[in-house]
Amino acid sequence: MAVAMPTLGLAEGHAEVPAAVPTDVVWILNSVLFLIGGFLVFFMAAGFAMLEAGLVRGKNVTMQLTKNVALFGLASIFYYLIGYNLMYPLGDWAIEGVFSALFPAVAVLEAVGVGADAVDDYAYASTGSDYFFQLMFCAATASIVSGTVAERIKLWPFLIFVIILTSFIYPLTASWTWGGGFVGEAGFSDFAGSTIVHSVGGWAALTGAIILGPRIGKYKDGKTVPMPGSNLPLATLGTFILWLGWFGFNGGSQLAMGSIGDVADVSRIFSNTNTAAAGGAIAALILTTVLYKKPDLTMVLNGALAGLVSITAEPLTPSLGAATLIGAVGGVIVVFAVPMLDKLKIDDVVGAIPVHLIAGIWGTIAVVFTNGDATIGAQLYGIVVIGVATIVMSAVVWFILKAVMGIRVSEEDEITGLDMSELGMEAYPEFSKG
Amino acid sequence: MAVAMPTLGLAEGHAEVPAAVPTDVVWILNSVLFLIGGFLVFFMAAGFAMLEAGLVRGKNVTMQLTKNVALFGLASIFYYLIGYNLMYPLGDWAIEGVFSALFPAVAVLEAVGVGADAVDDYAYASTGSDYFFQLMFCAATASIVSGTVAERIKLWPFLIFVIILTSFIYPLTASWTWGGGFVGEAGFSDFAGSTIVHSVGGWAALTGAIILGPRIGKYKDGKTVPMPGSNLPLATLGTFILWLGWFGFNGGSQLAMGSIGDVADVSRIFSNTNTAAAGGAIAALILTTVLYKKPDLTMVLNGALAGLVSITAEPLTPSLGAATLIGAVGGVIVVFAVPMLDKLKIDDVVGAIPVHLIAGIWGTIAVVFTNGDATIGAQLYGIVVIGVATIVMSAVVWFILKAVMGIRVSEEDEITGLDMSELGMEAYPEFSKG
Amino acid sequence: MAVAMPTLGLAEGHAEVPAAVPTDVVWILNSVLFLIGGFLVFFMAAGFAMLEAGLVRGKNVTMQLTKNVALFGLASIFYYLIGYNLMYPLGDWAIEGVFSALFPAVAVLEAVGVGADAVDDYAYASTGSDYFFQLMFCAATASIVSGTVAERIKLWPFLIFVIILTSFIYPLTASWTWGGGFVGEAGFSDFAGSTIVHSVGGWAALTGAIILGPRIGKYKDGKTVPMPGSNLPLATLGTFILWLGWFGFNGGSQLAMGSIGDVADVSRIFSNTNTAAAGGAIAALILTTVLYKKPDLTMVLNGALAGLVSITAEPLTPSLGAATLIGAVGGVIVVFAVPMLDKLKIDDVVGAIPVHLIAGIWGTIAVVFTNGDATIGAQLYGIVVIGVATIVMSAVVWFILKAVMGIRVSEEDEITGLDMSELGMEAYPEFSKG
Repeated sequence: MAVAMPTLGLAEGHAEVPAAVPTDVVWILNSVLFLIGGFLVFFMAAGFAMLEAGLVRGKNVTMQLTKNVALFGLASIFYYLIGYNLMYPLGDWAIEGVFSALFPAVAVLEAVGVGADAVDDYAYASTGSDYFFQLMFCAATASIVSGTVAERIKLWPFLIFVIILTSFIYPLTASWTWGGGFVGEAGFSDFAGSTIVHSVGGWAALTGAIILGPRIGKYKDGKTVPMPGSNLPLATLGTFILWLGWFGFNGGSQLAMGSIGDVADVSRIFSNTNTAAAGGAIAALILTTVLYKKPDLTMVLNGALAGLVSITAEPLTPSLGAATLIGAVGGVIVVFAVPMLDKLKIDDVVGAIPVHLIAGIWGTIAVVFTNGDATIGAQLYGIVVIGVATIVMSAVVWFILKAVMGIRVSEEDEITGLDMSELGMEAYPEFSKG
Repeated sequence: MAVAMPTLGLAEGHAEVPAAVPTDVVWILNSVLFLIGGFLVFFMAAGFAMLEAGLVRGKNVTMQLTKNVALFGLASIFYYLIGYNLMYPLGDWAIEGVFSALFPAVAVLEAVGVGADAVDDYAYASTGSDYFFQLMFCAATASIVSGTVAERIKLWPFLIFVIILTSFIYPLTASWTWGGGFVGEAGFSDFAGSTIVHSVGGWAALTGAIILGPRIGKYKDGKTVPMPGSNLPLATLGTFILWLGWFGFNGGSQLAMGSIGDVADVSRIFSNTNTAAAGGAIAALILTTVLYKKPDLTMVLNGALAGLVSITAEPLTPSLGAATLIGAVGGVIVVFAVPMLDKLKIDDVVGAIPVHLIAGIWGTIAVVFTNGDATIGAQLYGIVVIGVATIVMSAVVWFILKAVMGIRVSEEDEITGLDMSELGMEAYPEFSKG
Repeated sequence: MAVAMPTLGLAEGHAEVPAAVPTDVVWILNSVLFLIGGFLVFFMAAGFAMLEAGLVRGKNVTMQLTKNVALFGLASIFYYLIGYNLMYPLGDWAIEGVFSALFPAVAVLEAVGVGADAVDDYAYASTGSDYFFQLMFCAATASIVSGTVAERIKLWPFLIFVIILTSFIYPLTASWTWGGGFVGEAGFSDFAGSTIVHSVGGWAALTGAIILGPRIGKYKDGKTVPMPGSNLPLATLGTFILWLGWFGFNGGSQLAMGSIGDVADVSRIFSNTNTAAAGGAIAALILTTVLYKKPDLTMVLNGALAGLVSITAEPLTPSLGAATLIGAVGGVIVVFAVPMLDKLKIDDVVGAIPVHLIAGIWGTIAVVFTNGDATIGAQLYGIVVIGVATIVMSAVVWFILKAVMGIRVSEEDEITGLDMSELGMEAYPEFSKG
């Protein structure tokens, strides 16, 4: 009798069927959330690559692609070797003692998280799924940097910076909140990482852009010379892929899907994340139309991304209306911050600083509007502490790299384009230049 | 003992382990279906954008991208503000009273759907996941229109049409079946929306194309002048993304995944959806080879999409063989309908009318071949009622827009291309024109 | 009381909540794994299409896209008609007797796999989800071939080869291991198909490349003439899509997700799959820099793919470190094998033979390093038996096709490019050639 029941679903038989979710099912569903969230955030690596390849000039496209693939590969390796353990120093989550002990046996990892002891130790999902999910956040931080410093940075110094960022800078600053550290204990609230991921990437990018200097010819006689992206469909595709990945980024950060409360929260987060992107895109569309008479697609794309960054610090508590407005402010920020950075002669090739840093700060502050547990003091404290630490560490690394090996290609190579000068390979060898 | 059991799986221990799915797990799995289905259908926005960007000429690509991003943003906002409540006027699903009441508390939404009362109220999943999933269908309807009216419509009138479509036209006509309305009560059966989504988009597009008129130079001396798409890899990518998204579109429309019967149904739907696309593609491949001696890639792509539209009204009951044939007829429709529209001087830039409208009608009729509950009378009734309503409402909106602000760019701007004339931004600024 | 419990999750109430996963939930979760894995592997069809479209010259892009869409369509149809039944001759999984009987009733498929009998018959998931998942592996095999023989093979002979490959060659050789056949019984271990999928595709491609001969002008006066790909962003996008799809490819091959042990295994597989790709990409990056002074993006992309192929035979037992090294060897293989093939005048347009065949052999051998159950003897036995069978069958088919209808386009058509000569349609009609 009991065997035939479940196919009847809720309509009948709910008297006999238990309501409670078995604890093993909770554990499985939590792990599934991390896996699905993880592969969605993984795909953001492709999103960043396409966005950046579309927004740089044709002569630097192959280099931008190479950097994006390489940075993801290096992030994967160094977050494993160093970052993950640095970020979660608790024994249970440490990757050594779990994965290493599994060479070649499988039993240990399966055992982790099972039974009463594990419940007390917060092992509510598989270590592998947690690692997979967390890695993708670390890699995203590095992807943010590559866009800003495009078209003039040398490949290897950039990749060494990525290694330091993904081994130390991001894991350390992230552990202060997510690893049970002092910033989190001070009450700082950053659900999925407006500050912890996006602003950290943004600060590292800003520091790099200042130390590196602008591209040749970008600022001439007090004017900003437009250097339009070479392939706007690619940039649009990248934006849509990032938008898609963000459902995993924010939704997965609920960290649990094994109760009706948790899955309802994940659902709200998906809806809010989407509407914040919509708000950012439409705000930028309207604002560029009003200001410049013509809507600007790259602003609309960055507006959507800024909306996503803005909602990342608190995608759960806002209503749909509030989430739309929070995202819309992100879009407005982009439209004003892009020319402002140009006035300061900070050359951010793809607009990553407005999108990830400034909208990230906005989103972190905006938490206080909808989440009663957050205080403006704690939010500012987190923004400043993590910001200062990232700036200092990034600057030290950039300066050392500059002193030791140089970070910028020669003037001749930059004018030729990095594709031919550094790689000897064109992205579009058959399309003649206009 | 019970703790160690589950890892043994089905092989042993099935005597002690219960079979029935707890009701909370049903609720969770239903919500997960909506979330996964939703992000797959979301990605169709990227698919439409790439398909259309690849099929328009280079001088209109930036505009086509802008329209696609903007229409998705507007659909997100207006379906929230107006459409969702119009479509599901039942109190429990209404987004006001749920999300709005949640500013800033979280408790309410979590409570919705829990307990015995909620079961009686059909709350079998989280409101947020349902909203997220339904929104994506509404946005898809608008994406269908943008391709047909490309290369000559002004940006803002188009976007205003999108607002009306996603606020009123789609939600209203959809509610007649899916919102418990009179068309559904008359026995009309449209599983995932061959008529309710695709034909509605197609009718709106057709009305727009007729009122707007063909592109300059498209029909000359009784002949159709080919205006080939500028980037076929993009169009192919868009088709594959749409194909991917369709698994969510049709599979998610099962609306439940919390029983073995439901997940078996979702599985059949995935398989049938895939094979219908295959049938459509191969039918168009063979037919264009036979008719024109040379296979036509754009017909093959549209054939696959027509196959997908054809199976959307009933992806569950057909066998794999029947699904392949239903899709193949969709592919045949495309090959004959594209030149037929040209003969009528209806200029459908990307072929959306054959794919979404005509194959949508075919798919809705084809339901009767495999679903014993459907009658040809009810199917035709739904097609006609929803079709007439969409045509009338769309025509009124297009005519008002034409009268008030004009819907078509100037002849000079059209020849220059919308990218430079309306946006001042080229999609591929460095690739010289052949 | 029990109703309120589950929202409390693990923190409280675990005394009252059962741990065990109900058997119906196991069945549902297994099916969900196949569905998610399946749509991820489906998307690999887009990945192959973009990779190959990016790596061929501009004059052959439309043809490469046409082949990729058509081969997927044909694989879908012929794996249904012939391949699936050939591969799994057990009654329970056979698609005839299940899907065919379902025209038009739904009840049969829902009944399959339910109840105690079904457990004994290994029906641990829905037939539809298993079919959907297995089909995608078959289609991947065909995608591998299309890249190698690009730019000179005629469309229809290629498609006929695809029909034979997906109807007979792949299902037959795969059934020897996965269908309960003699290779599997001899102890051959190939978790997700380094040999069974990738090497089979690779052997079929190699046989085709030899019989077809190199492209005109590729080998001149003892030198290899570079024929650079026309669109590297597309190739990079394709690589990222394949990387994404591989989580489904390897993770789904766990075949179960209904216990904490299984989901922990899937999690490890995701992590190992990712890090193997990273290892392959970084190994190729470093090696090309050392050997040629300049990193080579196409080598980095193929290095990532070779890393993925290498880990496919055993993605579960390696530690993260071992997985990285296994993938890195794959990257090294690519860098050395690509010029080696050129020395042998075997013209593999996209590098599919090094990636899928040679790295596939490596990955199959590498199983013995981490999986105690595998023996080098059994692994070599499987590699040789499946390899020889594929070579013989492929060669017979290629020779018959060559004799009956010719497999190569005319010299003139090849120089003109297949797009204009065979299809009359350019991929980028507006971008003038450099």
